[in-house]
Amino acid sequence: MARRAKPRAASPDRGQSGEDQLIARHFKPIARHPGAFGLTDDAAVFTPPKGHGLVVTADAIVGGVHFFADDPPDAVAKKALRVNLSDLAAKGARPAGFVLTLALPKSCGDAWLKAFARGLGADARTYNCPLLGGDTVYTPGPVTISITAFGTVARGAMLRRAGARVGDRVVVTGTIGDAALGLRLRKERMAIRRWRLDAAMQRHLLARYLVPEPRNALAGVLRDHASAAMDVSDGLAGDLGKLCRASRVAAEVEAARVPLSKAARAVLAADRSTIETILTGGDDFEVVATIPPRKLKSFVAAARRARVKVTEIGIVAAGSGAHFFGPDKRQLRFSRASFSHF
Amino acid sequence: MARRAKPRAASPDRGQSGEDQLIARHFKPIARHPGAFGLTDDAAVFTPPKGHGLVVTADAIVGGVHFFADDPPDAVAKKALRVNLSDLAAKGARPAGFVLTLALPKSCGDAWLKAFARGLGADARTYNCPLLGGDTVYTPGPVTISITAFGTVARGAMLRRAGARVGDRVVVTGTIGDAALGLRLRKERMAIRRWRLDAAMQRHLLARYLVPEPRNALAGVLRDHASAAMDVSDGLAGDLGKLCRASRVAAEVEAARVPLSKAARAVLAADRSTIETILTGGDDFEVVATIPPRKLKSFVAAARRARVKVTEIGIVAAGSGAHFFGPDKRQLRFSRASFSHF
Repeated sequence: MARRAKPRAASPDRGQSGEDQLIARHFKPIARHPGAFGLTDDAAVFTPPKGHGLVVTADAIVGGVHFFADDPPDAVAKKALRVNLSDLAAKGARPAGFVLTLALPKSCGDAWLKAFARGLGADARTYNCPLLGGDTVYTPGPVTISITAFGTVARGAMLRRAGARVGDRVVVTGTIGDAALGLRLRKERMAIRRWRLDAAMQRHLLARYLVPEPRNALAGVLRDHASAAMDVSDGLAGDLGKLCRASRVAAEVEAARVPLSKAARAVLAADRSTIETILTGGDDFEVVATIPPRKLKSFVAAARRARVKVTEIGIVAAGSGAHFFGPDKRQLRFSRASFSHF
Repeated sequence: MARRAKPRAASPDRGQSGEDQLIARHFKPIARHPGAFGLTDDAAVFTPPKGHGLVVTADAIVGGVHFFADDPPDAVAKKALRVNLSDLAAKGARPAGFVLTLALPKSCGDAWLKAFARGLGADARTYNCPLLGGDTVYTPGPVTISITAFGTVARGAMLRRAGARVGDRVVVTGTIGDAALGLRLRKERMAIRRWRLDAAMQRHLLARYLVPEPRNALAGVLRDHASAAMDVSDGLAGDLGKLCRASRVAAEVEAARVPLSKAARAVLAADRSTIETILTGGDDFEVVATIPPRKLKSFVAAARRARVKVTEIGIVAAGSGAHFFGPDKRQLRFSRASFSHF
């Protein structure tokens, strides 16, 4: 792709354009898959293993919207990849690779790119998910990172939002609400004082917003046990509602059973109204799934072996919608169930 | 994905967020592939046919950079998809589907989206390339459209930039330079007067910039005949240079043989200096390929049957770089061989 903006710097007359040099310098080392051809071709080749299908997911993050413009570039890169890895985890798929399109403003120079590529490369190795290809373009707007991630799954075995049955147990990984509280800590100076958090708690919440921890270690366990699953990105209440809609069921959740970190418990103790942020704020990148009761014990044991914390929080019922109940059995009402830009 | 910006409008309390409604209204009708699950899940599933591999390519276009902010939204959508289809064509792959991430500013309301989706849907049908999934996010910057397109190709048969051999003929599809001249027509008011173009010629050049015509009809013919191929997006001179670098050969092209439209010939007659725009300006989305001499006749006949114009413009030689020669056999020198933002 070529076009309308001025090049940032003249290309040395070695026949290689500035964009090619940028790619060779920063991204070629991450592109270890043989089908990526070292990023020297127009496309990559990938063939899923025999009997397997390809799971495809795409998410974009935008500077000033999904992360702060001054966030460390390596953390930004990790977030961009991990929000996609989280979808693969929830679908029961094994990461296979990703492509990246990066729209860069002039303010992101070589040092920014170097750190960005370092973070991306570290995660590509950690999650065994190599860079397959992509595109780098100029933007007069904020940094915009779009990633399409590929996973593989035995044919027909991709976990769906649809599939939950009445009587299935609702489970969730990790802890809920940390990232949304971490975002409030960054945006609302008063929150730090009001919530009376110590430094370690603040760090925990901020870190959970900055870089999610996708549950790819649980993908196989979910595939073997869950009747339905999705990743929690737009708030547990709203996302569980989406799963219920796809499955044509309802879910009843005891809010007190939703797993919270020590920091989130401290916030909630200081300010009960934060329950809405916790349950609807989003950016959790945990997995919510439904497990048939006969598989629950095996699921919990397998999750323990995979070293992923899972918590039973409720049950699938006839009806529609995800309903959260307080200790008094009264249903919690939220001003909105999940985040949406539109 | 959820995050930091205010939602544009309150979601009706039907459990479905504004983003979900936007997707259901505009994009679900384009997502006809069964593996797209009507865009109601977190990921899509795709399995290449037996014996086939997946070809993956990604390109992003940015408002004010790759297209004008006031371009018709249906044309913008087509351009976004076609720049990717062009890569699939050059690699000899058959389109199979695509995922879209769309970063939207507030200025792109429902009417814009409706027209955008209409253009995208028309091309998805024309090129048999259904929408598989994606993500819609808010941006404070310009509209940014990232597409990852998938194609299928018999395993091991993807055309590469590498593979050209000394003695192979260099061929190019369609005509070269129209889009780059069309862009100059839009940016330089004086160009219209200086180049003395009639209305039809102006329309031709402007249309070629607005919406490319990818050569997917030629993909199978290229796969059967070409030793190397790539799409011409950053200018013929620079892109042929990239093909030469990957193949470790040189190319010698007679500039007078490069196929030009009637409009481009008129521009060149009025202003000889435009040869640089024509050969290095980019946005052609034609295919440059190398054909072994023994296959040339068959290639030309097959291209005619596929109704794609192809022209022999030069020959592969030992050495390095793509060299263009004038009628006096003197080599043309360009201030830069291809466009690059960086």
